Amino acid sequence: MSDRIRHPAFAALRMSAEQAARHIRHGMTVGMSGFTGAGYPKAVPGALAQHITEVHGRGEPFRIRVLTGASTAPELDGALARVDGIELRVPFQSDPELRSRINAGQLDYMDIHLGQLAEKVRYGFFGKVDIAVVEVTAIREDGSLVPSSSVGNNKTWLDMADAVILEVNRWQPDALDGMHDIFYDTALPPNRTPIPLTHPGERVGEPYLQVPLEKVVAVVETDAPDRNSPFKAPDAASKAIAEHMIDFLRFEVRQGRIPANLLPIQSGVGNIANAFMQGLGESEFAGLTAFTEVIQDGMLELLISGKMDLAAATSFSLSPAGIERFLEHSEMLRKKIILRQQGVSNHPELVRRLGCIALNGMIEADIYGNVNSTHLMGTQMMNGIGGSGDFARNAYLSVFMAPSTAKNGLISTIVPMVSHVDHTEHDVSVIVTDQGLADLRMLSPKQRAKVILEKCVHPSYRDMLADYIDRANSGSYGKHTPHLLPEALSWHERYLVTGSMFRPEANQAQD
Amino acid sequence: MSDRIRHPAFAALRMSAEQAARHIRHGMTVGMSGFTGAGYPKAVPGALAQHITEVHGRGEPFRIRVLTGASTAPELDGALARVDGIELRVPFQSDPELRSRINAGQLDYMDIHLGQLAEKVRYGFFGKVDIAVVEVTAIREDGSLVPSSSVGNNKTWLDMADAVILEVNRWQPDALDGMHDIFYDTALPPNRTPIPLTHPGERVGEPYLQVPLEKVVAVVETDAPDRNSPFKAPDAASKAIAEHMIDFLRFEVRQGRIPANLLPIQSGVGNIANAFMQGLGESEFAGLTAFTEVIQDGMLELLISGKMDLAAATSFSLSPAGIERFLEHSEMLRKKIILRQQGVSNHPELVRRLGCIALNGMIEADIYGNVNSTHLMGTQMMNGIGGSGDFARNAYLSVFMAPSTAKNGLISTIVPMVSHVDHTEHDVSVIVTDQGLADLRMLSPKQRAKVILEKCVHPSYRDMLADYIDRANSGSYGKHTPHLLPEALSWHERYLVTGSMFRPEANQAQD
Repeated sequence: MSDRIRHPAFAALRMSAEQAARHIRHGMTVGMSGFTGAGYPKAVPGALAQHITEVHGRGEPFRIRVLTGASTAPELDGALARVDGIELRVPFQSDPELRSRINAGQLDYMDIHLGQLAEKVRYGFFGKVDIAVVEVTAIREDGSLVPSSSVGNNKTWLDMADAVILEVNRWQPDALDGMHDIFYDTALPPNRTPIPLTHPGERVGEPYLQVPLEKVVAVVETDAPDRNSPFKAPDAASKAIAEHMIDFLRFEVRQGRIPANLLPIQSGVGNIANAFMQGLGESEFAGLTAFTEVIQDGMLELLISGKMDLAAATSFSLSPAGIERFLEHSEMLRKKIILRQQGVSNHPELVRRLGCIALNGMIEADIYGNVNSTHLMGTQMMNGIGGSGDFARNAYLSVFMAPSTAKNGLISTIVPMVSHVDHTEHDVSVIVTDQGLADLRMLSPKQRAKVILEKCVHPSYRDMLADYIDRANSGSYGKHTPHLLPEALSWHERYLVTGSMFRPEANQAQD
Repeated sequence: MSDRIRHPAFAALRMSAEQAARHIRHGMTVGMSGFTGAGYPKAVPGALAQHITEVHGRGEPFRIRVLTGASTAPELDGALARVDGIELRVPFQSDPELRSRINAGQLDYMDIHLGQLAEKVRYGFFGKVDIAVVEVTAIREDGSLVPSSSVGNNKTWLDMADAVILEVNRWQPDALDGMHDIFYDTALPPNRTPIPLTHPGERVGEPYLQVPLEKVVAVVETDAPDRNSPFKAPDAASKAIAEHMIDFLRFEVRQGRIPANLLPIQSGVGNIANAFMQGLGESEFAGLTAFTEVIQDGMLELLISGKMDLAAATSFSLSPAGIERFLEHSEMLRKKIILRQQGVSNHPELVRRLGCIALNGMIEADIYGNVNSTHLMGTQMMNGIGGSGDFARNAYLSVFMAPSTAKNGLISTIVPMVSHVDHTEHDVSVIVTDQGLADLRMLSPKQRAKVILEKCVHPSYRDMLADYIDRANSGSYGKHTPHLLPEALSWHERYLVTGSMFRPEANQAQD
């Protein structure tokens, strides 16, 4: 026994990752831990990839269906994709190797709201989960499990899988012990009951995961860091977006529409989210809370500085420097952070009840406020919808943010018609770019087009867009949501042909 | 006092519709009752329209912002639209006169999830509600109000409006008294608590609406029927769709994924919904329940026959024959029907908890399962999203149904890319046409395209669609959700130019 495996029967199941991986066979559906690069298994997937290579070398098939919490890391998604070991991958991913194979059409990827996967597996829509591979921080004396740096769908994988492989990762801080809140009162319809949570900081579950010993087929010890990408200092566009957003929140507070300490914040991952957190840290706002998916560096700093009282999430996603800060303040942070399964962190019931302010990134938005979060040029998958839909649909305010251009100005974030829709006009309150903020609440489509043109579009595309809007307003079949169908996707078409959405003669024609 | 106005102070406020209408002035935001042609005010809107005509005749402006529950009738939406008296109309509408003005770009229409309007008004997003015009069945001795044949947003209009006009409609059956369940425990974030409802038949509120006497400025007596359209016998396509759907439910029950008495049914309005109810009535299913927006003739018959134990909704939408059936069985039906405000009938918390089977109509769907519920050819508003999004996003099963063609075959319901998205690929479990049923659960985009092509598309469009899919699979920029952007909307473009989506040479090219 070790200090991280404190139950003798579990300790007796210790084996190498290679031995453990042999429990996974061709065609299996495998539920793996991992959410935004935290808490994924570090050893078994790589050993499995090695084994798959050997089997393929013998000319035999070996592909599995991989269900996770969200994105993992090269050691999991990358390793298995590289050896062509994945038949189906669900849900959110962000690994370059996996992504390139998805977009080459070499494997099936199914993108689903992160808050819905666990229940749909429990409904039986995916068939049987053959085996779970779940990282934990420790196995306790009573056989209960101290979860890792993400909870994700681990409760469901442990509950539903026929067999379980546990990875016990010594690298995960002891301080995680007691930070989790696993909700076990999860009957399915028609027997489901309310989730009795009325504040992000309430605890409604237990700190530990449970697994029947008889399902555990292997325990693998690891000592490996999460995929912690370095934190980038916010760039000018991110800072501008954050400032527009914080000014807007000030305005809403002055109007009496939100309390002075705001409402629980949900914030996606990335540089804009970090810039927003940094901006909040420098603002007058205090007594903040978060009800979100992921705790990034920026949010951690708000907790450390005392600006934020509490953050509830399903995962960390910290930089190496963020980890240091966490360890430095872990005793204090233990009281301010709650990690829950993603079926609870992203639950529509709770997002609506708590009245979250939902802040998510986007790839593009159109003049009517439809948002594309997933597809480049309508066809190429970037990462996935993640939890943005869980929050956007039910939030008090649903905000989407992005720089006004991408690819050094060759792509406009604001387009006539988005090439793929993940969030409809019905679910988008506010769009923010570095240019400004468009408050779309309670506007008709044509009113939205006006304010988005005025506030959000980059100046180099403004005349082109104004020209489209003008001509659509007069030439459209219906005048409720005016469009010229042959031109609606022409900006994307032009980018695919010429490498730029920009049409030089467009602005000249206006001179 | 009359038997319908049983409180003297309210009786003292009786006046004509013309007098009452003078309380409404140019620029006001007016909250009106009405949902799917039931429970809308019958007299004041017409008198207001008359008054607006006079004011316009003097060369003065007079337009109001009209918020309702959902669709009303010619006496409200039609009358006010005809005199150009509407500046902004929210939410769902279905009046021909109003629709034609919306699509001519003559007034602003804002389409919002029906379950969200009340809370967004309460959040203050719409500004002040100046006056409410609400139909009720009776005013009781204690001043409480017996709601009418729809509840809609009436609680919110009565709570929020500065002034209130009540229409007491003698035509509404006495039997409605006691049928309603108005939930008053509706604090806003951060003080909101769970809605403690775990079965469609539970009562969590009060049977009557409340209004402070001091806000009431007029009481108008009416005796006028709801807009009750005659019931059409299901056509062949509706019957085929209903049969596919009922077979699918049988399959799901056999697989153990839903109980033998199903889960609470949500059903949109229209002939397909009625055909489905009729099909259920002839099936082996029993012990059914409904958690839905609207009770149509078909559902009423299930309640009368005893196949359905209970239906919770926010409104009736009955034919004249349906009304007769209701009156005939009203004592029994009083125990089996609960009408709630639409913020509760359509609440995501409840739809998810109860695990509804959500059945909604659509205009079109694309090969990847995106659904357009609102826009003809992407630009012309039909009615609105209604509650379809409230249910589809959170349902146990989210089903969209339509005949495989429209306009005598000139329009294909299944298209390469929908011209407007109301329900994304993430929110659609099943698509049904008269051709068959496509179970999209847990499929990748390319797998979905295959099954939709195989099951749902009309034979006359099958080759054209197969050809598009083939060429997109090879020629698309990204191969995750393959599309040829210059062609993605070409079927709609062709319809606008030629009057048909069909391309004759397409099928020949395949021969």
